Amino acid sequence: MPTYRVDLAYDGTDFHGYARQEGLRTVQGEFETALFHRTSELKTAVAGRTDAGVHAAGQVISFTVDRSLDVGELQRSLNSQLGPEIAVYAVSEVPDTFHARFSATGRRYRYRIWNAPVHDPLSVRTTWHIPEPLDVPAMDRAVAGLVGTRDFASFCRKATGRSTMRELREASWSRAGSVVELSIAANAFCHKMVRSIVATSVEVGRGRLDPEAALGLLEERDRSVASGSAPSRGLILISVEYQ
Amino acid sequence: MPTYRVDLAYDGTDFHGYARQEGLRTVQGEFETALFHRTSELKTAVAGRTDAGVHAAGQVISFTVDRSLDVGELQRSLNSQLGPEIAVYAVSEVPDTFHARFSATGRRYRYRIWNAPVHDPLSVRTTWHIPEPLDVPAMDRAVAGLVGTRDFASFCRKATGRSTMRELREASWSRAGSVVELSIAANAFCHKMVRSIVATSVEVGRGRLDPEAALGLLEERDRSVASGSAPSRGLILISVEYQ
Repeated sequence: MPTYRVDLAYDGTDFHGYARQEGLRTVQGEFETALFHRTSELKTAVAGRTDAGVHAAGQVISFTVDRSLDVGELQRSLNSQLGPEIAVYAVSEVPDTFHARFSATGRRYRYRIWNAPVHDPLSVRTTWHIPEPLDVPAMDRAVAGLVGTRDFASFCRKATGRSTMRELREASWSRAGSVVELSIAANAFCHKMVRSIVATSVEVGRGRLDPEAALGLLEERDRSVASGSAPSRGLILISVEYQ
Repeated sequence: MPTYRVDLAYDGTDFHGYARQEGLRTVQGEFETALFHRTSELKTAVAGRTDAGVHAAGQVISFTVDRSLDVGELQRSLNSQLGPEIAVYAVSEVPDTFHARFSATGRRYRYRIWNAPVHDPLSVRTTWHIPEPLDVPAMDRAVAGLVGTRDFASFCRKATGRSTMRELREASWSRAGSVVELSIAANAFCHKMVRSIVATSVEVGRGRLDPEAALGLLEERDRSVASGSAPSRGLILISVEYQ
């Protein structure tokens, strides 16, 4: 049976997250409604179930249907139905072993902070505004210390029974003018992991926590010790890696 | 009497332009309402009366009052009242000869096009989406030919009796990935001048008009010969120059 991969981007501001929820406007809900206009009812898989307000530049969805589809026509049909907040960049037929979530070998996210005394009206939807100057080199040292295969329970929202071991491959903070940005890649992230790392980084950037203390939190393996989670609007799923 | 200069930015998407209009939500209306909470009724001047949907990164307002104000407190008060779409970056006392509009010696605007087959959900509010590939070097040649002190009547919305002579100091189109951008500076711009130049540039970029023809349109000195005007959402007032 033919399997398809869809690459898409969205502005998450006005969605209740990716995952379908009865009676709420979600990316999955909008996407599947647009798809069902063209295909019989089916289940879709997604690489990253982003939370409410989180954006995506390189999200991936897959699904299997019982008949061949014209991929160009499907892309045009989805884009014409989905409106300005969602864009389907590509639709392609893939081997039937492909699964958007289980075949993914890596995910990359970016988090942006607008770090200036006054907020920027044109990046309100995509940045967290922090007026006090942040010590970015210290934040960078803090996250560099987390790279490796570790138990990230301290930065995961509790999900009983599920492993919280992750391979964090890259994490770095940098500044360009008023924008302070985290680039972070792992095999996978547990729920709220990036935003918890951001919140802890910001405690370091404000001088309230030593860069080394972030690693110490990890060793506690307890969600309650980390510094909450940063606002969703600064977070964007950049890309998903497949072998 | 003390005169003040206010530097501000705004996301113009949900405003009916800068200039106050009875019963409509405008930047001037919001700003003056916030200001009157703190000062007696007065008139404000503005460097650039941006149209509905046009943004600003470096707009300048000036006003004169009959008593000294605490500039830091005024900035905080304005920002706390104005909400996320408007940001006051600075408030400063200036010589009483300063007038945001009449003292300005130059204005710089930027116009952005998202030039890729599919739109970008995260720049919908700030770009014009054009799916067909644009010939950017040709667009650049077209606007380079306009630089100089000329009668821009062909690119101005008619305003009877007013001069349409302007000194265009710089105009260049460039591409960075899917973003095609015009950077343009003049002593002043007449109404819809930038968006008319963008629309004509795009005709050139689509191969429907020779780069040299843009200059030919100028020589007609007639608004009706130019190619309409580009959507406002791609336009942003970057900065205003004072001597």
